Amino acid sequence: MNNFDYYNPVKILFGEGKIDQLSNEIPKDAKILFTYGGGSIKKNGVYDKVKSGLKGFKFFEFGGIEPNPHFETLMKAVEIVKTEKIDFLLAVGGGSVLDGTKFIAAASLFDGDPWNILEKGAKVNNALPFGTILTLPATGSEMNSGGVITKASTKVKLPFGSPLLFPKFSILDPTTTYSLPANQIANGIVDAFIHTTEQYLTYPSNSPIQDRFAEGILKTLIEIGPQAIANTEDYQTRANFMWSCTMALNGLIGTGVPSDWATHMIGHELTAFFGLDHGVTLAIVLPALLREMKDDKREKLLQFGKNVWGIENGTEDNRIDEAIIRTVSFFNSLGVKTKLSAYGITLDQLTPVFERFQSRQWKLGERKNITPNRIEVILKNCF
Amino acid sequence: MNNFDYYNPVKILFGEGKIDQLSNEIPKDAKILFTYGGGSIKKNGVYDKVKSGLKGFKFFEFGGIEPNPHFETLMKAVEIVKTEKIDFLLAVGGGSVLDGTKFIAAASLFDGDPWNILEKGAKVNNALPFGTILTLPATGSEMNSGGVITKASTKVKLPFGSPLLFPKFSILDPTTTYSLPANQIANGIVDAFIHTTEQYLTYPSNSPIQDRFAEGILKTLIEIGPQAIANTEDYQTRANFMWSCTMALNGLIGTGVPSDWATHMIGHELTAFFGLDHGVTLAIVLPALLREMKDDKREKLLQFGKNVWGIENGTEDNRIDEAIIRTVSFFNSLGVKTKLSAYGITLDQLTPVFERFQSRQWKLGERKNITPNRIEVILKNCF
Repeated sequence: MNNFDYYNPVKILFGEGKIDQLSNEIPKDAKILFTYGGGSIKKNGVYDKVKSGLKGFKFFEFGGIEPNPHFETLMKAVEIVKTEKIDFLLAVGGGSVLDGTKFIAAASLFDGDPWNILEKGAKVNNALPFGTILTLPATGSEMNSGGVITKASTKVKLPFGSPLLFPKFSILDPTTTYSLPANQIANGIVDAFIHTTEQYLTYPSNSPIQDRFAEGILKTLIEIGPQAIANTEDYQTRANFMWSCTMALNGLIGTGVPSDWATHMIGHELTAFFGLDHGVTLAIVLPALLREMKDDKREKLLQFGKNVWGIENGTEDNRIDEAIIRTVSFFNSLGVKTKLSAYGITLDQLTPVFERFQSRQWKLGERKNITPNRIEVILKNCF
Repeated sequence: MNNFDYYNPVKILFGEGKIDQLSNEIPKDAKILFTYGGGSIKKNGVYDKVKSGLKGFKFFEFGGIEPNPHFETLMKAVEIVKTEKIDFLLAVGGGSVLDGTKFIAAASLFDGDPWNILEKGAKVNNALPFGTILTLPATGSEMNSGGVITKASTKVKLPFGSPLLFPKFSILDPTTTYSLPANQIANGIVDAFIHTTEQYLTYPSNSPIQDRFAEGILKTLIEIGPQAIANTEDYQTRANFMWSCTMALNGLIGTGVPSDWATHMIGHELTAFFGLDHGVTLAIVLPALLREMKDDKREKLLQFGKNVWGIENGTEDNRIDEAIIRTVSFFNSLGVKTKLSAYGITLDQLTPVFERFQSRQWKLGERKNITPNRIEVILKNCF
């Protein structure tokens, strides 16, 4: 196990009816900006519950935060924060609304151009406090201090984070997921699965607790995935799905172990250039990346095959191949296609993606050896 | 999964050399009481490292906090806090020093007789902030907000807790465990094992993440236990032991699931009356309790047998019996004896223990059906 620091002060309120406790969690004299997305919360009743919970508070609304939230949109919210002297944010929605609200929290008190938080990794020295009500399990944003923002004008999608950007509280009510379409549930399962593999499929570091927790999340997602999609109102399945997603990216399974994140960084470009759903990009990139990096990840791929998929027989290469095939089949079984061609994307369209990686010269992965050339190989294997 | 709230703001600094960061974690103008136990930290170098880290701070020392810390001892520290206007506590030691320091933190600002915090469960409305440096992994006190205190004069041992009693930080350096005697390592492994079973061996609640995390901790403890005892300076084994103990009782595996704690409450009396080590009392009580409560815990005992011990064949009763036998053998393999008679205690000595439970009329366990009469049966089966 490597040395590490771990800190996660988010208060989680989990379960049916927990939205009723909203008013207890917000400072009494807060002036609130209530942020949300495209309006699905108006159809499933969550919007009304939140408005009811906010009775007696001064609050403004900011709807329309899009998937892969846009810097341009969020800066409009920052204007409202400044004009109305907002001092607390309440994000209600999925990872995009939560990530976007974290950015509003940081950008509202940032000295200078907030784009620098993303492009230059400028340090966040102040942030507004905020709480969240999660309605789409996937990103873990409800219990971590990071996010990903897209500048629509230049198709640039970049991550940011700060210990100041943990939610004060997050309310997780599994019934809020009942109205989600199947593809969003599938994307959420894939997202949580690959958050876990990014912190697990690296190289051994003698961290059995972290490995077993990661394997526990993966096995749970495999077990509940089909049922979460087939049955929209199975409370227990949705509850376990929701908690799996939170556990996959709240920092815990990443303590003391190497992490990869190359699948995410490559996937972000596929979203930025082609508008593919985040979960879909991960399902496309991961199998190709695992094949390309098979030798570097050999020991953990064998462990993954054995402990997650129960693969014990055959040569090492056969077992690794089978583990990757089983993973692809799992994504497919959720209705998620794992080839770029299935989304109408052709090889020649990837040229600007390749160029961007060549210009950045990032070296990704747990060994910092996933170079731009290697990323090209990986992406070419996504057809 | 049941509804739950989860909140744990403890900052963990984990790894060799982390004590060097101590001075960054304490408020600059703090007036500190540095608390410790019987002096083992003076032999293993930790005392000197702490003193070095506290250079430039105003601090007082309070040593001599005994195992199963005494109310009477801790009240002497409370006097020093009041006289010297201490505003930060630093606990350096094992669970007893940490628990004792939590009590000092609460009692120093308590309005009335602090014994009421224990005897009457009086609410803690204020507490001094404190940090910890853990040198004996076992209790999880470094990442939770509870403790157990003994009044020596009346042999009463009682738990307490408050969300105000989370450490601000805890430093976990596995090398501080190198100088521990084998029996303390063994007790720590047993303690963490049974913290886990108290939150796992109950009844099914459709919580696969929590179950798998619990099983992961148990399997890790089984795997590393013998090595942790045999090899005093195996860093990785000690690191995994330390992190297992923290994970076993930081609230995480208890989210949304029923919990038992009867083994602890019965064990506390064996310590209070006979001075047995805490871990030893748990190793004695658990097997007898599992046998007595076999029908209530049937499904989880079968799951424990299968997922932790790999027991898949035989009748249900056979598999449960084997799981309990394997557990007892594991404790024995660590050098921990699991019968009261092995510690020279005779049945007639238990009369005051039985009387105390009869007078309290507690109903323990996840179903609140472990009555005083049933506790007598359990304790009689500990010979």
